[in-house]
Amino acid sequence: MRDRIRQWLQDHAGEAANFLSFLIKAESTAGLERQAQELVAKKFDELGMDVDVWEQGGDELLKHPYFCSPRTDFTGSPNVVGRLKGTGGGRSLIINGHIDVVPPGELEQWSRSPWSGHIEDGRIFGRGATDMKGGTVSALLAVEALQALGIKLKGDIIFESVVEEESGGSGTLAAILRGYRADAALIPEPSGMAVYPQQQGSMWFRITVKGRVAHGGTRYQGVSAIEKAVLVIKRIEKLERKKNSPLPSEPLYQGVPIPVPINVGKISGGSWPSSVPDLVTIEGRMGIAPGEIPEDAQKEMEESMRSLKDIDPWFSKHPPVVEWFGARWLPGHIDLDHPLMRILTDTYRKVLNADPEIKASPWGTDGGLLTQVAGIPTIVFGPGVTAAAHQADEYIELQSILEAAEIYALTIIEWCGLTPPFRA
Amino acid sequence: MRDRIRQWLQDHAGEAANFLSFLIKAESTAGLERQAQELVAKKFDELGMDVDVWEQGGDELLKHPYFCSPRTDFTGSPNVVGRLKGTGGGRSLIINGHIDVVPPGELEQWSRSPWSGHIEDGRIFGRGATDMKGGTVSALLAVEALQALGIKLKGDIIFESVVEEESGGSGTLAAILRGYRADAALIPEPSGMAVYPQQQGSMWFRITVKGRVAHGGTRYQGVSAIEKAVLVIKRIEKLERKKNSPLPSEPLYQGVPIPVPINVGKISGGSWPSSVPDLVTIEGRMGIAPGEIPEDAQKEMEESMRSLKDIDPWFSKHPPVVEWFGARWLPGHIDLDHPLMRILTDTYRKVLNADPEIKASPWGTDGGLLTQVAGIPTIVFGPGVTAAAHQADEYIELQSILEAAEIYALTIIEWCGLTPPFRA
Repeated sequence: MRDRIRQWLQDHAGEAANFLSFLIKAESTAGLERQAQELVAKKFDELGMDVDVWEQGGDELLKHPYFCSPRTDFTGSPNVVGRLKGTGGGRSLIINGHIDVVPPGELEQWSRSPWSGHIEDGRIFGRGATDMKGGTVSALLAVEALQALGIKLKGDIIFESVVEEESGGSGTLAAILRGYRADAALIPEPSGMAVYPQQQGSMWFRITVKGRVAHGGTRYQGVSAIEKAVLVIKRIEKLERKKNSPLPSEPLYQGVPIPVPINVGKISGGSWPSSVPDLVTIEGRMGIAPGEIPEDAQKEMEESMRSLKDIDPWFSKHPPVVEWFGARWLPGHIDLDHPLMRILTDTYRKVLNADPEIKASPWGTDGGLLTQVAGIPTIVFGPGVTAAAHQADEYIELQSILEAAEIYALTIIEWCGLTPPFRA
Repeated sequence: MRDRIRQWLQDHAGEAANFLSFLIKAESTAGLERQAQELVAKKFDELGMDVDVWEQGGDELLKHPYFCSPRTDFTGSPNVVGRLKGTGGGRSLIINGHIDVVPPGELEQWSRSPWSGHIEDGRIFGRGATDMKGGTVSALLAVEALQALGIKLKGDIIFESVVEEESGGSGTLAAILRGYRADAALIPEPSGMAVYPQQQGSMWFRITVKGRVAHGGTRYQGVSAIEKAVLVIKRIEKLERKKNSPLPSEPLYQGVPIPVPINVGKISGGSWPSSVPDLVTIEGRMGIAPGEIPEDAQKEMEESMRSLKDIDPWFSKHPPVVEWFGARWLPGHIDLDHPLMRILTDTYRKVLNADPEIKASPWGTDGGLLTQVAGIPTIVFGPGVTAAAHQADEYIELQSILEAAEIYALTIIEWCGLTPPFRA
């Protein structure tokens, strides 16, 4: 059966590349996902799936503690779920891919339009090729191969094409609240074909540091918010050392110098070279360890900022103000000895004749919501290299899409179970 | 004669307040100085002065090493100089005041229009009341009193009403290049009636600090420009300590903790909370000590930045880039035992029955250009408190204008010399 699947994938490589190209051309940045989702819904329908298309909203979603989005109106941004009913008695699997893509950034840096979907030398180019329409097409191709070859599964496949992953995951949260559940989940994000049983979560923080204005010529009459911000940055570095000390001994973190980093990403303060700055704003990303409760991590940061008063009395009356804003990605995980892990890694070895790289992802995915809100063990594994994501001239290799599709197809068969007359 | 001058000033206080009010209403921010200058030129003419009105420009000015302005076209921004010819044999005096005012800032913070020129309870309100139309009116009033009382001076008075002080002093530079010279100069900037025989100069610097971008989840793969900027800030603090160590022992600097401060006024870097920042820009103001050569101070800062490579090899390949931009004010000075210092301080004691405060100003004025480019010893001394300058609801006390005018009048008489039949 492996040979038949591989052959079918090879025979349909061109169609897969074209479908990906069309998905890229649909320009599905946040708010503009409808066209791409219609293509996906049509594909689900062709595959004989029950198709559910809806625009998320409502109080249960908008007031959920893990709802995180810059918008509350999702008109024009439908989620699409296709359910392939199994014959019964098998394990179900959610396959979750996001249709939204990040903006293309500066157009001058692109050799072609970000929306070209250009195909050349086995590569498909454009925003979203890697992150993550390539992975979605690969998983769709796997399901299509099974259908085309008449393979019937015992367990259900629930294929979620969601919006808003890049803005905090409200699309996947909406799918969870709509009731979609499975025994495990697979997210074909671009892991470079590494297997991620754990995913680092993250939250954005903003710290406001106060000073007191004065003329630069008598700067000793003021209090520099920039000098105070230096103390804040040093304190963040100290907190990071504490969170990563001792380093986790698990094999997943071997060679990773900072498993749970705190990144100070932006700083801005002062308004005039000749004035003592009275306000500095720092923004950054705090990693959340797999298994860590986000609220605990927040408290740790806030406590760390409060403790600054012990080294500088200025902070007693002017404590740094910590806000949590913008996007948040929950950490996700699956047990290393979970059956899906065994099946996926065994299949990988069979298909590629090599051991898969198994590690913790340094970034979050919608797998965090699936794990923490829905309690669904989730693996992230997909084609496309992370380095190409969010960059100009984003592209993906067609070959990696085909290899991943073969691994997905065989993994699905073993996980969901085969309905006779077929045997695995 | 002192009594007659004081009486004349008292009798004309209302006219002085009204004239200042008109000058404020003329809204002379950079580029819009013409209307105010016309009022000044008319006053010069009424006082029997030779009046010179011109719009500055030309290569000699624009290519001068100390030319510093955000613009090169001064159409609509004339300088005005009035020369009151003496009878001969006396010392000449430049009185230099700038007509340009800084923008009003946020209008909501003003109780009345910044251009109201409102007079109430002995105060005149509006942008420029203190900095420095009040000082200019005070000095004009002094000259007018001498004229009105028939007092004839031996030496010339050259009254310069210049543009562009707030933007780097090109108006005064233009007056110097036009040939105006005197034996000494007096600038009625708002010193709060303190005598400033020395003025701290200043230059603006911009330091660009490089890093290497990476995703925040793997921040150890990048180099944080914010972390490197912290080292740059620490190095600037070290340079400041060096420049102020040992503290000057002169009485002028008693109680001044940092006579020549370096102020880090702005910081900006990074573009995304989840990215390692690859660029930080720092802007600030470096004080220039009276007598210090600006170019030497620049070299010292640049050398200090180069030396960072000794503590962090990153800086060897990515040295911080130092630029000198925007405004620059040269330090100014007059010898403490200069005759004009003696005359001014003696007169102060006679008029106000108190010892004047004598100190170094923590900011530069056009006195730096007069001192360093024209070699004219310059004192800054004027009515109005520094704290009101550049603020909302800027105002000046009419009483301080009258007191300063009396001191100016008597100082002018003694400095320029009295032509018989009058005796001092």
